[in-house]
Parts: sequence; structure tokens; C-alpha cells
Amino acid sequence: MSGSKSSSETEEGLAFQPSFDASGLVTCVATDAKTGDVLMVAHMNEEALRRTVETGDAWYYSRSRKALWRKGESSGQVQRVLEMRTDCDQDAVWIKVEQQGAACHTGRRSCFYRAVAKGEGAGIRLAFVDAERLFDPAEVYRAKA
Amino acid sequence: MSGSKSSSETEEGLAFQPSFDASGLVTCVATDAKTGDVLMVAHMNEEALRRTVETGDAWYYSRSRKALWRKGESSGQVQRVLEMRTDCDQDAVWIKVEQQGAACHTGRRSCFYRAVAKGEGAGIRLAFVDAERLFDPAEVYRAKA
Repeated sequence: MSGSKSSSETEEGLAFQPSFDASGLVTCVATDAKTGDVLMVAHMNEEALRRTVETGDAWYYSRSRKALWRKGESSGQVQRVLEMRTDCDQDAVWIKVEQQGAACHTGRRSCFYRAVAKGEGAGIRLAFVDAERLFDPAEVYRAKA
Repeated sequence: MSGSKSSSETEEGLAFQPSFDASGLVTCVATDAKTGDVLMVAHMNEEALRRTVETGDAWYYSRSRKALWRKGESSGQVQRVLEMRTDCDQDAVWIKVEQQGAACHTGRRSCFYRAVAKGEGAGIRLAFVDAERLFDPAEVYRAKA
């Protein structure tokens, strides 16, 4: 949280003043507006936020590619934003979206296609859940290869 | 993503090998298991993850207080974890929880109690939604004041 803004203004105010991190980003959680499932966790910079609010399409900032991207611009799997909310300290946003096809670049509906097994000890295991591929990444991203 | 792990192992493997960031953290999204609403976005370090998996209570790492904390240890508003999932690149986890009372330190059920208004231009406004307080922070955190 920025030291220049009071806690009460950030938490109780009605001005959207995102608290960007050192890299200029806020965390964005996208959920399926119908099911409530978390589809993906990604990041937005100021420009991605602005474009998302203005256009109603989800825009993100890729930390690995260091580039702004409109979700679905390569894959066609766009996200229409039905509602955006921010949290108490304004360093995260939650968007409820209509997801075209699959959110994950692996072709799954959600990036969260593996459950963490309960239990003790080292070597925690995962199990696939809702992991059916809705598209073939090799096909969809062929132009990028 | 760590350079020591292959992309396919991280994305398609069944070993839980969280990709901690430079601060040793992964992002955690907690949703209400009943409604699908996002309750909060916070962080877990390796120890918080381990305790969460082992105990079924949500543990986090506070970046501001630089301390491990069990959700609800001050407020009583604990989170029982019904399911944990990780995402494709294993740098985020999603927990579906039974939230006792309110998740937000402001007393609201969810930290996301303000909607971002659609539209163009500077000065984007917020509007309260689902912002009823379930507890009085001044009362609940009195011992900490």
C-alpha cells in the first residue's frame, strides 16, 4: 500500500487508486461468471486495467513476455468482463468473466486443473481434476511456434 | 517459473513443486466453497503452504508484518480448506474454504466489497457491493490496538 494514501481512503474511499507493486502490477483473479470457478490468476498494469475497464475485454500484462496482451488475441479464447471488483487495499482485482472456450494456454477451461492432495510429509502430490483439454495448444498456437 | 524445472513437468507433472517468487511466496486465492465468491487474495510461503495442507486450516504469510499467520487467529474468522488446487505454472494456489464469519479485516464477508465502474476516462469510481460489516473491527482487533 502506498504511504501517500491513508488506509481509510484506500479501504473505504470510492476512488479507484490501485496500489501497484514495485513492478507496476496488480494481481487479477478471473472467475467464471456462471460457475464461480477460478479460471486464472494473472497481472495487470495501469494500461491493462484501463483497457479492460474501457473495452470490457480482459487485458493483462505478461511478466515473462514483458508485454500487454488482450486475453484471446492469439487463441481466440477471449474473456468478456461482466463485473470488476477491487479489494480492501486495492492491490488486487477480481473479474467475473464470460470465458470463450478455455482460459488456460494448455487448453483446459481453467489453469487450476490439478488438486493438491491432503496429508502430511514431503512430496505432496497433485491429481488432475477438470483437466479435459478444450483445444490443442499445438494447433492453436501454431502461428507462434 | 524456475529454470531448473521443465515446463512440461511443471504443467503436466503430479509433483507439487510450487514456483515461489523472489520473496519466497505464491499467490493464494480463497473462494467461498458455497457461493464461489472470491473472499481474499493473499500469499503463502513454503511453511504456510505446508501447514495449510497438513492441518486443513488456511495459513498465510503477511508481507506487511513479515510473519506467518493462521487465518482467524486474532479475529476468530477461520477458514477451513475443502480443496486446494494449483495452476499451470504452479505459482498460485486456489483454496475453496468454509469461511467462519468474515474474511476481510474490515468486517466484510469478502475483501472485494467494491465494484469498479465501467466507462472511459480518468478518475474511475468504485461502488460498494455486498459491503455489510459482519463484525466491528474496532471490537474484534481491540486486543491488538
